[in-house]
Amino acid sequence: MSAKRLIDIDGLSLDLIETILERAVALSQGAEPFAQTHTVANVFFEPSTRTRVSFEMAATRLGLRVINLDGERSSITKGESVLDTLKTLHAMGVELAVLRHEQTGICHELMDELPPGLGLINAGDGCGHHPTQALLDAATLIAQGVDLPTAKVVICGDLRHSRVARSNVALLTRLGVGEIGLAGPEALMPAMGSDFEGIKRFEDLDSALANADVVMMLRVQKERMDAAHGGLDWADYHQHWGLTAERLAKAKPDCWVMHPGPMNRGVELSADVADGPRSLILTQVRMSVFTRMAIFEALLS
Amino acid sequence: MSAKRLIDIDGLSLDLIETILERAVALSQGAEPFAQTHTVANVFFEPSTRTRVSFEMAATRLGLRVINLDGERSSITKGESVLDTLKTLHAMGVELAVLRHEQTGICHELMDELPPGLGLINAGDGCGHHPTQALLDAATLIAQGVDLPTAKVVICGDLRHSRVARSNVALLTRLGVGEIGLAGPEALMPAMGSDFEGIKRFEDLDSALANADVVMMLRVQKERMDAAHGGLDWADYHQHWGLTAERLAKAKPDCWVMHPGPMNRGVELSADVADGPRSLILTQVRMSVFTRMAIFEALLS
Amino acid sequence: MSAKRLIDIDGLSLDLIETILERAVALSQGAEPFAQTHTVANVFFEPSTRTRVSFEMAATRLGLRVINLDGERSSITKGESVLDTLKTLHAMGVELAVLRHEQTGICHELMDELPPGLGLINAGDGCGHHPTQALLDAATLIAQGVDLPTAKVVICGDLRHSRVARSNVALLTRLGVGEIGLAGPEALMPAMGSDFEGIKRFEDLDSALANADVVMMLRVQKERMDAAHGGLDWADYHQHWGLTAERLAKAKPDCWVMHPGPMNRGVELSADVADGPRSLILTQVRMSVFTRMAIFEALLS
Repeated sequence: MSAKRLIDIDGLSLDLIETILERAVALSQGAEPFAQTHTVANVFFEPSTRTRVSFEMAATRLGLRVINLDGERSSITKGESVLDTLKTLHAMGVELAVLRHEQTGICHELMDELPPGLGLINAGDGCGHHPTQALLDAATLIAQGVDLPTAKVVICGDLRHSRVARSNVALLTRLGVGEIGLAGPEALMPAMGSDFEGIKRFEDLDSALANADVVMMLRVQKERMDAAHGGLDWADYHQHWGLTAERLAKAKPDCWVMHPGPMNRGVELSADVADGPRSLILTQVRMSVFTRMAIFEALLS
Repeated sequence: MSAKRLIDIDGLSLDLIETILERAVALSQGAEPFAQTHTVANVFFEPSTRTRVSFEMAATRLGLRVINLDGERSSITKGESVLDTLKTLHAMGVELAVLRHEQTGICHELMDELPPGLGLINAGDGCGHHPTQALLDAATLIAQGVDLPTAKVVICGDLRHSRVARSNVALLTRLGVGEIGLAGPEALMPAMGSDFEGIKRFEDLDSALANADVVMMLRVQKERMDAAHGGLDWADYHQHWGLTAERLAKAKPDCWVMHPGPMNRGVELSADVADGPRSLILTQVRMSVFTRMAIFEALLS
Repeated sequence: MSAKRLIDIDGLSLDLIETILERAVALSQGAEPFAQTHTVANVFFEPSTRTRVSFEMAATRLGLRVINLDGERSSITKGESVLDTLKTLHAMGVELAVLRHEQTGICHELMDELPPGLGLINAGDGCGHHPTQALLDAATLIAQGVDLPTAKVVICGDLRHSRVARSNVALLTRLGVGEIGLAGPEALMPAMGSDFEGIKRFEDLDSALANADVVMMLRVQKERMDAAHGGLDWADYHQHWGLTAERLAKAKPDCWVMHPGPMNRGVELSADVADGPRSLILTQVRMSVFTRMAIFEALLS
């Protein structure tokens, strides 16, 4: 991996992972950011204000210059490939592009063709990867004092299409987490032979939760849930796969609850769990900025 | 009222009102702004480039970091409540949110549930309040040398739905203005028992204007005018309720003309009045930046 | 011409043109930009992320404050003329507006009515002018060491509707370029008696290219090509008017290839030419930022 590219978890050295995570925790505890005078561009072909604002806040706190480019509505792309768009931005002085795109695998495709001086961060590609989300989730757990080598982490929801799940499984595996468990509707479980090979699967949330230290709930997308359930409604999903206070009682008493946001309250999670004392959801949001600051520092130094 | 919230005029102490108005006038005369290193977010669920740019200019001149969030197109809100969106922004480091929303009363509803450290400015809620517009209008009049305790102010237009009118009536009353008069089509006059209780009403603009020192014209929205007039056209509205040079002659010779913008030329106002020597419309725009600077200073200090 | 207006090439003194071009080249070679504390607004009624980002990068590197205003979706313009919008921005503190608008001639119309203190840069008006594109193209050629007084420049494509072509012909003429040649489909050639009066025309690209030092390809817009060709497809356009390596061989061996972007690969240009050693396309993008920095410096000093 080039020092300036962050495409997926597998492309990162364990050293770089540990540098980023330690630095994110240090920044969250008040360490001084390294001043930067570089220019980064947020290039979002798939809308995500949450992730865009998080990267923008991180860049702004480092003193980076930020250009926001909404690819969907962007005329920069009229008849132009994503590669030409990124080359154009680089020629204008952009040194690092944060790219979100609905096409799975696009960052891997671009990687060899990009100008060597242009850094790239994958901010989510289709059903592919979302490495910065996994890094911020891990930084959140470390900052919270979770002992990863002994922790049991459960990931629940649409595992088949989730780039968040894929990157989290890859990172937690690299970090030597105690155990990972997967749970979700049959039709939304990952295909065999996939990146989730060898990861423990549960047929219902209750058995997955037994003795868990951390439960990560994934965001439900209505159109996929319909396909998986033959048109069942959200209340029904919640009944089978939603995390309620009652269900959470099956896990350890100090089990942490996570969600990458934005939440569908009353679907993935009941409101009392989302707002309860075990929820790390706003801590994840807070750590997202510090983790992305640490990533910018690592890629731009 | 928390020192960090500006929701409506009634929630402000007279001390704070006077501090803001004096400071706005001082800034407009060249006083040095207080440097700020806070982060504010413009969260606009209802589009308003004019107001957003005015807040952005004010923030930029103070050295604040500004995040612009167009709520309408924002994926931050997918299945997410406004409260969750604001909590998310706060967790990312936003210390003050400027909120515009089409739902009347939303700022009041949010106020008790927001994190204590998050400031909130109501930049217009449905048919509710628009306190920063009222403050900038008052700062404009003070900067112009109008003696409020003796001034007769006329407000004309769609008073029933106007948050600008509601906040102006509340502020002018607090500031002890000489007299307020209201005029507008019957169907667009405020309901009895409303916030406009006890304010003088006129059945036509000419009698309202008699001896006026200030006339505030409200923006007409076509869909509401149609309802009020049974589908009459803009020319017809202009004939009955539009401010022309001829009509303005009924007021005092040095009567000031105001409009919150954007104007419909030839509807609320004839072009010669809008561009004439008695028009304060561009002065209002100019004072909008200084007043919002004073508001940021007051809420963030 | 006011020192603060850049509307078309004809309105510029040769002195100012030379100052801008020399400064752009110097900035591209590392000269220190003059620090600026002014506020500029990008007001784009016609979408163009490429041009907007280029102006934004230039402004940011000079330390200017930048306000981005997407006029198309902007409520600042509800029922408001462009003149009122610009007056409003000026009242808010904007000192220079960069305006793109689909209406040909709008900058000329506005010029006399704008507040004297508000600068204006025409960033493209309909089928009118695009003077900053011509300046950056000339700066690119000068930086590349092209000897303009002896150079033969060919411009190919939709000359009838192209503001890029119009401004380039005007600027190259002013700079005393050796020879200009025009080529393109008959239906897309400029009308007689137009700004292109007296400029050499060729009936096919091959003869135009003979002995050329520089070829500027214009962007094709599908709807116009259809009209010109009675619905022929892009492959057909490419066959007649596209620049291929084979065709480029008719020009001088060191002939430069330019395109204002965004390119339709395989239409105006074959990919091997676009990415080949004679292509200046990314150099133009790079010079666009330095040229616009030089323009800001010249207009704001």
